[in-house]
Amino acid sequence: MQYIQPFQQAFHDFLDGNPFHKEPENLYVPADYIMGLGGKRLRPVLLLLGHYLFDDRFHDSLPAAMAVEVFHNFTLVHDDIMDAAPLRRGNPTVHQRFGLNAGILAGDVMLIRAYQYLLELDRPHLLPRILDVFNRLAIEVCEGQQMDMDFEQAEEVRIEDYLKMIELKTSVLIAGALKMGALLGGGSEENAGLLYEFGRNVGIAFQLQDDILDAFGDPEKVGKKPGGDIAQNKKTFLFLKALELGNPEEKAHLKAWFSSSDSPEKIEKVLGLWEKLDIRRYAEEAKNRFQDQAFLALEQVGAEETKKRLLRELAGELLMREA
Amino acid sequence: MQYIQPFQQAFHDFLDGNPFHKEPENLYVPADYIMGLGGKRLRPVLLLLGHYLFDDRFHDSLPAAMAVEVFHNFTLVHDDIMDAAPLRRGNPTVHQRFGLNAGILAGDVMLIRAYQYLLELDRPHLLPRILDVFNRLAIEVCEGQQMDMDFEQAEEVRIEDYLKMIELKTSVLIAGALKMGALLGGGSEENAGLLYEFGRNVGIAFQLQDDILDAFGDPEKVGKKPGGDIAQNKKTFLFLKALELGNPEEKAHLKAWFSSSDSPEKIEKVLGLWEKLDIRRYAEEAKNRFQDQAFLALEQVGAEETKKRLLRELAGELLMREA
Repeated sequence: MQYIQPFQQAFHDFLDGNPFHKEPENLYVPADYIMGLGGKRLRPVLLLLGHYLFDDRFHDSLPAAMAVEVFHNFTLVHDDIMDAAPLRRGNPTVHQRFGLNAGILAGDVMLIRAYQYLLELDRPHLLPRILDVFNRLAIEVCEGQQMDMDFEQAEEVRIEDYLKMIELKTSVLIAGALKMGALLGGGSEENAGLLYEFGRNVGIAFQLQDDILDAFGDPEKVGKKPGGDIAQNKKTFLFLKALELGNPEEKAHLKAWFSSSDSPEKIEKVLGLWEKLDIRRYAEEAKNRFQDQAFLALEQVGAEETKKRLLRELAGELLMREA
Repeated sequence: MQYIQPFQQAFHDFLDGNPFHKEPENLYVPADYIMGLGGKRLRPVLLLLGHYLFDDRFHDSLPAAMAVEVFHNFTLVHDDIMDAAPLRRGNPTVHQRFGLNAGILAGDVMLIRAYQYLLELDRPHLLPRILDVFNRLAIEVCEGQQMDMDFEQAEEVRIEDYLKMIELKTSVLIAGALKMGALLGGGSEENAGLLYEFGRNVGIAFQLQDDILDAFGDPEKVGKKPGGDIAQNKKTFLFLKALELGNPEEKAHLKAWFSSSDSPEKIEKVLGLWEKLDIRRYAEEAKNRFQDQAFLALEQVGAEETKKRLLRELAGELLMREA
């Protein structure tokens, strides 16, 4: 991802220059900890790219890029509590390391800090518009997380509801980051809306890709053994599609496996059924459908072709990860 | 509090007309639950009064009043988790009734919703200023909560740090509500600043009053038996002042009692020591100092005397509650 290096570098410099690092320590150390765990910084980079499509001075949007990254990390901290996750990017999660209360309160202050960064943009005439986009996506991310938790308990989950859930939980932040960047860069509402559509569809495709890689990925390339979602009984696209296509006996087996705890046999049996039902092909088709929609939207964005290519290549690279 | 009835009524009507009440239900039912538990709605009423001081059309500020009330309730939901509190206003707390995850996520969405209400003000030229006041107080409330939790573990807490903590945890929201109202009503920065000072000092006095009532209040009038703070080993002004004034033996006893669990004997002994050391007088003096500062600031506010009287009477009534 050589071509996005200037955007990544600009963001890293901004991040390094803006630690929380204040009193009271027990509030801000956990916030700095999660922000320092790294990651691709995809969302802020997309926001800067959104700006750059319409205006070269993408540095002006760095506070907004920071807002979306801080917001994203706030969601990680609180989601990890709700999911009782012990690890995040190979390190202890915030609540695991600093305790439940620290996780809750550090998350809260990060969410507020995200709004402070939006105010630091010092773009008063754009602020209401930017805030509207941000508020909306922030609410939707919470709604997506709630749907995800609801699905864990639900008897039946429809594929369309699953797609809605991943749209809210994952995609709208990517889409909103691009849209905010576009608006800050002086892009029209129409172009900002098209970029939002691009991001929304890329985000869904990206999550479907994740579902596929988890089951069928090459462990060497994905970096973890296959079947993690199966082990955790996660109702992914693959599971839901198999329930839709399986015969009554297969459905009953699948449901039984997804009520049991992890075992090598369970993963093997489930993967066997998915292969028999050709689930991977359906998932690839769904992914490609969203991917095509994404690129169609990008094509219609009125911006320089050389600039749009950056987004196309970045999305392509993310979506073509070796399976 | 007859004279604030129009402001309370206007807020209640707005509140009734704006339930969360949306899908997904498991996200919004807990939010509506806490919002429906009642309370004096002091903060939104103060915001409307702040507006009214400078402009009669206080209804225009209802979305901001809603923002501070939603924010206040968000802090209650998350604080109750952190304090492991089972009851709030005589009802089960949100996490007690709906579970930990519901409490975390409902709180999050309420915080975001508060920002949405500020945007609904539709006052673009004032928005950056209002957001700046709101962001600042929101961050400070989190910092106050962290200080409060830190003090539970701390060996020594200085009285000035305790006063800072209650200022952040309790007062800045009251002060900020008044200031936001004043700015929205067209008040000058100077007048808005004076109202902030009024609210900040009233808030601290109010908390000291709470500390006093908890130990020395008439159970019939306060509505709970005395010594709740002592039972919970809360390091209030009374405790800290007794540590400051007691002889080494008394200090040692006090510390020992505040490391032990609740018993009638403990409360009796601690109250006995506080009476001996005349702690109540010191607390009343401190309270009166903040109260005087509050009224001094209010006096300097450039607004109609008949309107200022509303605030003076409201504060007076809150601070003169029967002990």
